Amino acid sequence: MTRPRKTPKPAPSVLRSEIVSQPQVLQRILRRERKKALRLAQAIDHFDPQLVLIVGRGSADNAGLYGKYLFGAHNRQIVALATPSLITRYGAAPDLSRALVVAISQSGESYDVVETVEAARASGAMTVAVTNTEGSPLANAASEALLCHAGEERSVAATKTYTAQLYLLALLSAAMTGKQTLIDHLDRVPDAVRETLDQELEAQAIAERLRYLEQCAVVGRGFCYGSAFEIALKLAELTYVVAQPYSSADFRHGPIAVVDRGFCVLLLAPKGKVLPDLEELAVELGRRQAEVIAISNAAGLCKMATRALRLPSGLPEHLAPLPCVVPGQLLAMHLCRAKGLPLDTPRGLNKVTRTR
Amino acid sequence: MTRPRKTPKPAPSVLRSEIVSQPQVLQRILRRERKKALRLAQAIDHFDPQLVLIVGRGSADNAGLYGKYLFGAHNRQIVALATPSLITRYGAAPDLSRALVVAISQSGESYDVVETVEAARASGAMTVAVTNTEGSPLANAASEALLCHAGEERSVAATKTYTAQLYLLALLSAAMTGKQTLIDHLDRVPDAVRETLDQELEAQAIAERLRYLEQCAVVGRGFCYGSAFEIALKLAELTYVVAQPYSSADFRHGPIAVVDRGFCVLLLAPKGKVLPDLEELAVELGRRQAEVIAISNAAGLCKMATRALRLPSGLPEHLAPLPCVVPGQLLAMHLCRAKGLPLDTPRGLNKVTRTR
Repeated sequence: MTRPRKTPKPAPSVLRSEIVSQPQVLQRILRRERKKALRLAQAIDHFDPQLVLIVGRGSADNAGLYGKYLFGAHNRQIVALATPSLITRYGAAPDLSRALVVAISQSGESYDVVETVEAARASGAMTVAVTNTEGSPLANAASEALLCHAGEERSVAATKTYTAQLYLLALLSAAMTGKQTLIDHLDRVPDAVRETLDQELEAQAIAERLRYLEQCAVVGRGFCYGSAFEIALKLAELTYVVAQPYSSADFRHGPIAVVDRGFCVLLLAPKGKVLPDLEELAVELGRRQAEVIAISNAAGLCKMATRALRLPSGLPEHLAPLPCVVPGQLLAMHLCRAKGLPLDTPRGLNKVTRTR
Repeated sequence: MTRPRKTPKPAPSVLRSEIVSQPQVLQRILRRERKKALRLAQAIDHFDPQLVLIVGRGSADNAGLYGKYLFGAHNRQIVALATPSLITRYGAAPDLSRALVVAISQSGESYDVVETVEAARASGAMTVAVTNTEGSPLANAASEALLCHAGEERSVAATKTYTAQLYLLALLSAAMTGKQTLIDHLDRVPDAVRETLDQELEAQAIAERLRYLEQCAVVGRGFCYGSAFEIALKLAELTYVVAQPYSSADFRHGPIAVVDRGFCVLLLAPKGKVLPDLEELAVELGRRQAEVIAISNAAGLCKMATRALRLPSGLPEHLAPLPCVVPGQLLAMHLCRAKGLPLDTPRGLNKVTRTR
């Protein structure tokens, strides 16, 4: 008799339950926030912003990177990511009277984010909070709030609120274009995320292989650039692996020097306009005998990789970051387990970090 | 007889000669570009930009981060860092007709930077190149060019052109404020950088201690945030250490989980408004028994650190990033030597990286 090839089903944890709840959270958002987003888009159109300023810290800042590409590519907006210290430390607020400020915070309690929104609103900006917590300081500070409806987040490593933030940004951006097809595309996301959860056993198997991993690079470009940051953050928080995020373009401008035989690179490479860049990089990494873990729905790229976590097909490129981050979350979770580390209580982290 | 305590003088290399040439390069810039910057500032004032868009890759992108704080804090501008792929991959140029575009590239040959400038100029933006290479594609694409006057850069790891880029940004920003005191402050920078070069022996001694370092974090905030990225990049390029840059605020939002006993953190902490944040972090790192290497002129912080590379006093905070990066360059160079790696030919890097 041969032993069963499948790794046994993982034990329950708060983190895992939040990861697998993501499809439902996204469905809830569509049900409850769609109308608000459409109404908000009309108000934004009326306000006619000259630029979009995005504010966030940690995972929310990574969601903001997604917003940068989204509002840039689909809404042709100039998008700046805020540097809260300019306001909280240097007291230098620019003229934001014509800015749409989008402030992202799960808890809605980051002082510097709230302070930035207050300063922006005082100078005449239109302010939108993206938060999980109704009635939080951030929700109160902003003139409008889009809610994650993710339920209480009990895991220290954010997962469901991150995808919820991405989804709300995609919803707002689509509503702002007024294009029905872009709004309709959103319907497909919850299923795509559900399908990606099927990669868990493969993520678990790869995590076994990465048991002694201490450092790696996570590379994406374009819409998935922010997801590279988010997966790197999950790896740092949960597995203490020093994981450095890069765009494929920046990576080749120097940091690629770190890549030697066996060096681990996670490649986020869904089909789309930047896929050729990632493929080119995969060839170069193959030449250096790197360990390449692909998160992709492109068969060619998966073949070039050492191991692959497969993404579903059929989503337009700009929505790929939502399913794309999920295998990364699963991998970080299982690597945490494989390393024998505490899943729900990472070393020295609190649920809410209050920086100024 | 006791052995001499000083480590012997390092052997010459292209990299070292470029590092030590930095004070002269900065002096040359002041002599040759000051008038042009003042004239340019008048033209910018006349143009009256609604925002500043900064474009760059690699080290130039790190210089851009400095520009973000500078134009934000002193010129009260909204500053966005460009995402070249939006233009080169997604064909989505925003309306830049009222933007001041500052494009930074040592060689002036990065396709994506040049393409972004061309698209911006076509839409009516005012475009300024910051480059070392007169007559380069970038210098030709932009309507104005500020030159680094750094001489040919032969080292693969950029050093003198990086500080030259910072200096040109500081010069332009000061000229744009029209404040004579800000312009006068610039005179002090070459000497401050020269003084910092005296830290070489200490950098060499610390490099011995870090011989087996494989990963670390580099933390700065505010004006020095970009220098954290630049020092991390030098470490990756020269020593293959996976060095991850963070703002102290972001670091405490999760990644601090990687810090265990002996984990190495470089703290960029010149005196100024963000120093208290760095001090608070140093206390936390002390609690975790981390290896803290401070680059600072604050006696208290230096005392809290395991080792310190001292910065001169007397420069205003916004100019500190120039001397601040120098001990980082020296440390990366000596760590490269201590590890027995090739100084002038890092693994698989070319002088000019042509990404689209």
